[in-house]
Amino acid sequence: MRIDVLSLFPDMFSGVFGQSILKKAQEKNALEISVLDFRQFSTNKHRNVDDYPYGGGAGMVLTPQPLFDAVDTLTKDTSIKPRIILLCPQGDRFDQKKAEELAQEEHLIFLCGHYEGYDERVREYLVTDEISIGDYVLTGGELGAMVVIDAVSRLLPGVLGKEESHLQDSFSTGILEHPHYTRPADFRGMKVPDVLLSGNHKNIENWRKKESLKRTFERRPDLLEKIKLSADEEKMLKEIKEHKTT
Amino acid sequence: MRIDVLSLFPDMFSGVFGQSILKKAQEKNALEISVLDFRQFSTNKHRNVDDYPYGGGAGMVLTPQPLFDAVDTLTKDTSIKPRIILLCPQGDRFDQKKAEELAQEEHLIFLCGHYEGYDERVREYLVTDEISIGDYVLTGGELGAMVVIDAVSRLLPGVLGKEESHLQDSFSTGILEHPHYTRPADFRGMKVPDVLLSGNHKNIENWRKKESLKRTFERRPDLLEKIKLSADEEKMLKEIKEHKTT
Repeated sequence: MRIDVLSLFPDMFSGVFGQSILKKAQEKNALEISVLDFRQFSTNKHRNVDDYPYGGGAGMVLTPQPLFDAVDTLTKDTSIKPRIILLCPQGDRFDQKKAEELAQEEHLIFLCGHYEGYDERVREYLVTDEISIGDYVLTGGELGAMVVIDAVSRLLPGVLGKEESHLQDSFSTGILEHPHYTRPADFRGMKVPDVLLSGNHKNIENWRKKESLKRTFERRPDLLEKIKLSADEEKMLKEIKEHKTT
Repeated sequence: MRIDVLSLFPDMFSGVFGQSILKKAQEKNALEISVLDFRQFSTNKHRNVDDYPYGGGAGMVLTPQPLFDAVDTLTKDTSIKPRIILLCPQGDRFDQKKAEELAQEEHLIFLCGHYEGYDERVREYLVTDEISIGDYVLTGGELGAMVVIDAVSRLLPGVLGKEESHLQDSFSTGILEHPHYTRPADFRGMKVPDVLLSGNHKNIENWRKKESLKRTFERRPDLLEKIKLSADEEKMLKEIKEHKTT
């Protein structure tokens, strides 16, 4: 996969792209990332990339020209149609399904705004996807782009080891993970549940399933409405609910 | 505000913390951030921070000792009670309200896990807040911590200029922003709406309000249920809905 990021703060990406999973994905040639300062595409003599809003009001608006020209340059030597992603609070909420969808693409371009807003023509005629990572206000699109790129990259074939990828399955399939414990069995008087030390695999498996359902019921009941439970799981959930109300 | 981040990948933060708003917040002394590798607190002779899960299963679990000891060290010379925040998919969904709440605190400590999971005792006895930034799987807690820190920092007094802070108000108060346009009025044949070039301030204001409602109705109708509209706005919204269904 090829990823191009257009940002006015390219240095923001160095730490994240040079470490951990994104470093690994690039080393394994699963991913080729470049970050470009779109100010360099401005044809304005002062290299300005923003201007006053038509109709008045506070703040500056990113002009269309540098972004359109940057995308033209990035796509001129290829027949691959990229997904062009704008990070903004008005976008579709990013989720695991969207990450899986984007992981199928060959080329992603991320547009990261800052300060104020984009000229609406960028939204209407240039981008293919508007994405929001959540209902909170961030200073710019950069962190959103990093979040989407991290979530997508770990889904690319060969990036995660077998063991790592296995682990997150439970979240991806729709309910929250059960609690984990490791040594010591007693840490400052805080103890590991007996069942986990019992060696009885069937009991351990049941305990984990029940804790997983319990945690999901307590914290994210909305997730339970979206998945199909087995008869055993339905029974466990009924017990959890009864215990809760008595 | 003082912020301490505990992570196994401290270098991930350099780009984001050294740029833009977080750089500014630190220069203005509104914020003091430090990032610590919690591996240095491990008393294990190999400096291990993870171990096999009790009860079996794939992946490794972060042991409680380095995290508890790191927090002890960070809090030993102060009477201020910090909020101790764990980034994890099971946490409460982060939103603007939570950002505003955290912006009132004097000291935040972020725990960033990686790979696998935390020993449950960290969750139960050490942390005060479990936060998720969204329903997607990331490689570690680092990006989540950066997102929360960015959202909180820009709310600290004196960090944003008056103009910048004004701008995001519309999102913070519950509906999506209207479209913005700037020069040129005609870019590659794509034109700015006439009303914005008219100079009629009342018409411009009405157009913006209506576009703001329209966008919210089309993209995030859930937001409209949470706010109180004026009589004028109710009328506009009714027109938008009627137009939509005819």
